[in-house]
This record gives sequence, structure tokens and C-alpha cells, in this order.
Amino acid sequence: QCVLTGFWSNNLGSNMTINFVNDKGEFSGLYHTAVTASNNEIKISPLQGSQHLKNKENQPTFGFTVNWSFSDSTTVFTGQCFVDDDGKEILRTTWLLRDEVGNLKEDWKATR
Amino acid sequence: QCVLTGFWSNNLGSNMTINFVNDKGEFSGLYHTAVTASNNEIKISPLQGSQHLKNKENQPTFGFTVNWSFSDSTTVFTGQCFVDDDGKEILRTTWLLRDEVGNLKEDWKATR
Amino acid sequence: QCVLTGFWSNNLGSNMTINFVNDKGEFSGLYHTAVTASNNEIKISPLQGSQHLKNKENQPTFGFTVNWSFSDSTTVFTGQCFVDDDGKEILRTTWLLRDEVGNLKEDWKATR
Amino acid sequence: QCVLTGFWSNNLGSNMTINFVNDKGEFSGLYHTAVTASNNEIKISPLQGSQHLKNKENQPTFGFTVNWSFSDSTTVFTGQCFVDDDGKEILRTTWLLRDEVGNLKEDWKATR
Repeated sequence: QCVLTGFWSNNLGSNMTINFVNDKGEFSGLYHTAVTASNNEIKISPLQGSQHLKNKENQPTFGFTVNWSFSDSTTVFTGQCFVDDDGKEILRTTWLLRDEVGNLKEDWKATR
Repeated sequence: QCVLTGFWSNNLGSNMTINFVNDKGEFSGLYHTAVTASNNEIKISPLQGSQHLKNKENQPTFGFTVNWSFSDSTTVFTGQCFVDDDGKEILRTTWLLRDEVGNLKEDWKATR
Repeated sequence: QCVLTGFWSNNLGSNMTINFVNDKGEFSGLYHTAVTASNNEIKISPLQGSQHLKNKENQPTFGFTVNWSFSDSTTVFTGQCFVDDDGKEILRTTWLLRDEVGNLKEDWKATR
Repeated sequence: QCVLTGFWSNNLGSNMTINFVNDKGEFSGLYHTAVTASNNEIKISPLQGSQHLKNKENQPTFGFTVNWSFSDSTTVFTGQCFVDDDGKEILRTTWLLRDEVGNLKEDWKATR
């Protein structure tokens, strides 16, 4: 319960497939975004991250990095896997999207 | 230039060591934080993530996940590797720290 | 359309009442939160902020500050007022909650 | 001590002048940004917000909204006023910059 392996979709229409979670909590997978801040054609992109394993409540936190195949940007997600009242697994995540900027002076505006 | 492999420290006194970056941009490493929002003893914690490889400016974006060994939390970092006027590599990052909360109703306050 | 004056509620059960918006876009009001990260009894708290006025799409951005009456924290919200397909006004906001910390060294963890 | 009234500048070269803080902690002022994510000419812009008043440590949290005069965007800042070892006042802030987007579907990317 609340192992991230599997297929997940969100309310923006994006989805991801997460492979086997190893005994350290590490995983890899593929992210298919439905939305983009770039003008490039969307391509499925690799992700990798890790989750906490066994704990009492079994609602572990996790994080992963998506290395976008169609842009120079990177997104990181972090969140927690919850089990709702019906026993269904729900992921709640927040994210940061980092754009590549030309130099240090533009760094302040690179993350949304 | 601007490959993340190596030893990095920040202005809070935290440091990290990043191992070999493979040909997909993936890497693993160890994060030694100097600060914690928990009351537990700090322990060195594993990280993994990825960076963009070859591009024109060679100042790639990257992201990584730290799976804290001493708490149930997870932190994700994302940023960009810059080369300053002296040719020195500088990382600029932002992060999200995700705490484990008891249930969905507390999700709103779980991330800082 | 998309003037913030009025009563608004969100999906967490919090609500706010915004008074008259003046000709500079400034307003004051009251915020009644349903959730708190503190252990204190919730009290209705004053807010003040501003919105952009006339523009072509009439879906202005805005921001406001809530000065919590029952804690030493402050929250800022920023967002945009949208008109959906049925002509109904919807606010979409993000926020930062700033806790008071004891000194500069703890600043890194003060905002969520 | 740690009343926001006065002239403040930051490491990006932006500065602001905050007027009289009233007995509710409310203030107005002017923000002169050195950086912009828009292509428009920068203009001095009005701000308004509030701070907590008397408390034991006298290092109050605060928040304010900047209603940009030269764009449709809004920025909110929140932070804390610290007194350093030399008795000098230092503001530490974080911010959210909200851009106007065309419709609800683009809301996800509107804030940095």
C-alpha cells in the first residue's frame, strides 16, 4: 500500500508510469505531461526519485526529478501518498519548474 | 564544465557529494545537511537526480531528491549550474521540504 | 466583473469578505481561516491588498496580506480572478505562510 | 526597532520606501524594482501591506503587495525583520510573482 509503482494521472491530464521501487525506495519511470510552458512538442520524459518505505502510517513522502526530453528545463515534484477512506491511494504533490536562464543575473526569475 | 560530479557546499554549511554522472545525466550522491526542521540527530542521507547534458551555453539545469535518513520527510532541489566570470562553477538552487502529515486534511501545510 | 468585492470561500472551508475596491484597486477585508498551523484558537483576521483594474480580458491579478490576529505569522496570497464558461467568477490563488522565527539562522525554514 | 518605515534596498538592486506604519501595523509605500520578467519599461509601483507590531522579540513578520504599474502582474512579499548582532535591521523576504494568463487552463504556470 502506497508504493508508487504503477500508473498515475492528475487533474491537468498529465500521467506517469513508475517502475519497480527497490529496497532503498528508489525508482525510475516516465512522465507524460499534458501541459508545457515551452513552445516545443511534448515528448515523454524520464523521471527518477525515491520514496520512504515502511513506516507506521504507511503514507510515505516521496520526491522525483523529471528531466524534460523536449526542453532544457527540469521539474522536481515532492509529495505524499495518502490512503483515503475508501482505501484508494492518492498522491498529493507540489512542484518546482526550473527554466534555463542565460546568466546568474536572471536566476531570480528561473523557477516557478 | 558544469557537470555536477564532485563536492559542493552552501552558505548554510550543508554539503553534498555527487558521484559519476552517467550518459543520461543521472547521478546519485550523499547530502549532509547542517540544518534540520526536525528534532532528530542529523545523518548523511542519499540523494539522486539528473542534469541536462550538452547544450550550447553549458549551464545546465538539474534536479535531485534527498530521502532523509533521519526523518520521514523528503526534500527536492532544482537549480542551474552557472559558470561565473572567473570560470568557477556555481550552483543556484531552490527547494521544497515535504513533511509527512497524518491525513489529507493536513496536506495544505506539509510543504515549505 | 472580476472585482474582488464580496464574499469568497475556498475548498478548505476558509472564507473571506472583501470590502469596496477603490479607484487605485486597493481593498481591505476580513479573512476567516478554517485551518491553522498554530495551536491557537482561530480568530477572524484583517486583510488588505490590491487588484489590477480595467484591462482587456478583465481577468485581473491581485494580491493581499493577512495579518493573523491569533498568531505572530503573516500570510500573503496572490492570484487571478477568472470568469468561467458560465460567467461565474473564480479566484485561483497561491500563498506563502511566514512564521516568526527566533533569529536569522532559522530563516531558511520560516516560510511554507 | 523593526518598524518597516524607511528606505530599504536588496541585493538585486531593487529598493522600496515604506511610509508611516499605523497603529494596526498597516503601511503603504513605493517599490522600485531593478529587475523585471516583462519587456516593459520599469516604473515605480505602489505597495501596501502590514506588519505585526509589539511582541517580545520585536522581530515581526510582515507582508505586502506590489501592484505593478508597468504590467498586469502582481507580486506579494512576506518576511521577517531581524535585528542582527550589530543592532542593524535586516529584512528577509520571499515572494511570489503572479502573471496574468488567458484562462483557467494556464493557471498552473502563472506563478513564480
